[in-house]
Amino acid sequence: MMIETIIGLLAAILTTSAFIPQAAKVIKTKQTKDISLFMYVIFVVGLILWLTYGILLINLPIIIANIFSLIFASIILYLKIKYK
Amino acid sequence: MMIETIIGLLAAILTTSAFIPQAAKVIKTKQTKDISLFMYVIFVVGLILWLTYGILLINLPIIIANIFSLIFASIILYLKIKYK
Repeated sequence: MMIETIIGLLAAILTTSAFIPQAAKVIKTKQTKDISLFMYVIFVVGLILWLTYGILLINLPIIIANIFSLIFASIILYLKIKYK
Repeated sequence: MMIETIIGLLAAILTTSAFIPQAAKVIKTKQTKDISLFMYVIFVVGLILWLTYGILLINLPIIIANIFSLIFASIILYLKIKYK
């Protein structure tokens, strides 16, 4: 595997899984006061567009990375609205 | 411009600019208790790898999108550490 591909895969894993500790923190504490609602609304819409882009291009890495990001970001957005 | 390109560009603009309202909120309130430190540490490392990937591939959209994401996410990370 080329070094670029390894760096790209690692980058995708990190920027996707980064949302797991934030989701876990909100689930645990039920506190979302300092989290921006607008950030997660804009981010979730953006991820839906990334997913659409991946589907239109039939690009599996883009599809998979954005499905996971969308799951984690949607959990945070849902809890932000729930615990508002 | 093809519809995929427009959707991809819009997706990149949204997932990049999503961090602006979060950065603005933290700058305004100086409150970061509910924000996950681990999320922003992992995310910033991931963005540095995305930027490296873009530079290695000489892919300007990846480079530009990740420079902006890196600026906004780094501001949030810096303030999270500062106001901890």
